[in-house]
Amino acid sequence: MPTSRTSPSFPDAEYWDRIEKVRAAMEAENLDAILITDPSNIAWISGYDGWSFYVHQAVLLSHEGEPVWWGRGMDAAGALRTVFMDEDNIFGYADDYVQNPDRHPMEDLARLVEAYGHGEQRIGVEMENYYFSAKAYQTLLKGLPKAELCDATGLVNWQRAVKSDTEIIYMRRAADIVTAMHARIAEMAEPGLPKHKLVAEIYHTGISGVGGHWGDYPAIVPMAPSGLDATAPHLTWDDTPLRTGEATFFEIAGAHRRYHCPQSRTLFLGKPPQKYLDAEAAVEEATEAALELAKPGNRCEDLARAFNETLSRHGFVKDSRVGYSIGLSYPPDWGERTMSLRAGDRTLLQPGMAFHFMPALWLDDGGIETTEPILITEDGCERLCTTPGGLVIKG
Amino acid sequence: MPTSRTSPSFPDAEYWDRIEKVRAAMEAENLDAILITDPSNIAWISGYDGWSFYVHQAVLLSHEGEPVWWGRGMDAAGALRTVFMDEDNIFGYADDYVQNPDRHPMEDLARLVEAYGHGEQRIGVEMENYYFSAKAYQTLLKGLPKAELCDATGLVNWQRAVKSDTEIIYMRRAADIVTAMHARIAEMAEPGLPKHKLVAEIYHTGISGVGGHWGDYPAIVPMAPSGLDATAPHLTWDDTPLRTGEATFFEIAGAHRRYHCPQSRTLFLGKPPQKYLDAEAAVEEATEAALELAKPGNRCEDLARAFNETLSRHGFVKDSRVGYSIGLSYPPDWGERTMSLRAGDRTLLQPGMAFHFMPALWLDDGGIETTEPILITEDGCERLCTTPGGLVIKG
Repeated sequence: MPTSRTSPSFPDAEYWDRIEKVRAAMEAENLDAILITDPSNIAWISGYDGWSFYVHQAVLLSHEGEPVWWGRGMDAAGALRTVFMDEDNIFGYADDYVQNPDRHPMEDLARLVEAYGHGEQRIGVEMENYYFSAKAYQTLLKGLPKAELCDATGLVNWQRAVKSDTEIIYMRRAADIVTAMHARIAEMAEPGLPKHKLVAEIYHTGISGVGGHWGDYPAIVPMAPSGLDATAPHLTWDDTPLRTGEATFFEIAGAHRRYHCPQSRTLFLGKPPQKYLDAEAAVEEATEAALELAKPGNRCEDLARAFNETLSRHGFVKDSRVGYSIGLSYPPDWGERTMSLRAGDRTLLQPGMAFHFMPALWLDDGGIETTEPILITEDGCERLCTTPGGLVIKG
Repeated sequence: MPTSRTSPSFPDAEYWDRIEKVRAAMEAENLDAILITDPSNIAWISGYDGWSFYVHQAVLLSHEGEPVWWGRGMDAAGALRTVFMDEDNIFGYADDYVQNPDRHPMEDLARLVEAYGHGEQRIGVEMENYYFSAKAYQTLLKGLPKAELCDATGLVNWQRAVKSDTEIIYMRRAADIVTAMHARIAEMAEPGLPKHKLVAEIYHTGISGVGGHWGDYPAIVPMAPSGLDATAPHLTWDDTPLRTGEATFFEIAGAHRRYHCPQSRTLFLGKPPQKYLDAEAAVEEATEAALELAKPGNRCEDLARAFNETLSRHGFVKDSRVGYSIGLSYPPDWGERTMSLRAGDRTLLQPGMAFHFMPALWLDDGGIETTEPILITEDGCERLCTTPGGLVIKG
């Protein structure tokens, strides 16, 4: 074992538990090996942590031995500092493979897969992932002509759905952090304050952490649009001052050791129009109805149906999912990309699953986001944050 | 024209100049249309700005008319707020395409491409991009059986290499921001300060901006490893306190309106060992030698050769590229993924090109990064930042 790991997030035994789950899923799909390219999956199975996913990297896992880390030569040093595996299972490729149209790193990975004896086997690849490009797939196909490459998108992600005790501890710390971030917004916000000044405070609070627990970077930056910009869900910020008579929503997350707890609140400076108060009341009632059903034995779609039925009785309509699974993540998404709270997702809820219940409403002249990160318990669900509900009304 | 664009970064005319360049490049490749999926390229050609690249989105550009924005339904509202094109050229897909293994958004894009009359034409796609997955390519191939999909990776990126006057203004603002960030580090750093507390200050300074110009989020978070962790280039931070006798490098960027200026400096608390002083002196001398050659008419590889020759005379070796092109960017990379300063890159330097000259040295017991963002001028190059050179030695 390397002696260089100074602050591992998990004991080795937890990684082996995870590997066991993944191997069972591979068995069910009749896979001899998988190539894991999603940075969240790489971190979850090996402990690897670094902002190096802008170049190609992967973990090779078969049914025997340790996972094998593969990446850019200079990042092998980062692997040595963070993964639980032995140095013998860390491989770096030469730097002239990086962003070079004449060569592709997957040529090197194909040789490694071959060397490990998987050249003629069934190998899972994550076809639908940010970090497995069309060109990566083509190159791998060419480099492994006798292998059978199968789509294993989500295979590892699904094993992450139920959190361990340690993972839940980290998510609770992230929850405390995002609670503090929203408290800071409520404290600072006032007419005339340029948006970026407020965002600087949000970052400062989030990274400073809470209760002696440090803040990690969230996989998404703060989204904080005001007024008509808030008709759109994913705009970030500029230096426009906060204005009286305008709503601003803050979709932000706390993070600790790569575990996330996202939460949104909506600020209104001045007296909100009746439509906003009505919409907020409808969202609150519909959220209560949905979270009533958030317990083991019910399904993801049950929450969406309860929410949408209640909301529509109040004359509002939401045409997008009302939440998704959360946990360990790397940019560009803090969701786990498995469960969605929407019609058709019949996944059974289990204790230890965590969701961002995200019933945002985008109206024709602004947006309202009042959301709740939740943990499924033995007989119901628990709200992870203590942020007060409803609109934040000031000034 | 939509009336909703409150704070465009560029006049429409600049987008049309860019489109003209891209169309000339398409002509040279005999392409009838391209599907742009790199968020940096999407922003550069259309003005679109939002953290929505975690779902599939694209801009379709042919030889006639405006670019066409396509993305998730809810993000069409964000397009309306940010792009220069008319509302008629904005298309959103239904929410149940999002992260749903049973459907893929590219099915919808294929129909749009068909509707625009490109179903049997030659269409460029960015095969090597984070946001064009293997599955996206497969789905598009299936949805457009009579089209010829060609690799157009880098086609748009290369048109971005020479910056406009307005782009240079934004990069200078980003340079002022990163200069202020490094000044804040030099001011705050002391033995015992937990790393995340310093990173919180770095963020606060970066987003607060300088000289009345707001800070945007950089495409990479601060990398700030100490001691042995600094043998690796891409580790981020935790709560370990800064220690006397240890080096920490800070690879960070200022950003303004998505334009980046990255710069790294290395902090040493206490008296640095002679090896670090020798290495730093060698890097400085080699940097001078390289930047002497940073002028129009010379080639990217000339800088790398001059750097490496000088460095090796001092007994140090660097086996990775010494820099790359910078400008507009979105996560996970603030480089432009075109020019690299390394052997074999024979691109001719031109006025208006910008690089992160990045001669980092990773030693066996730590790392040194003293880097310079530069702008190629008519007859040489200009350092964009005023950060003092050399190691930052304190306490």
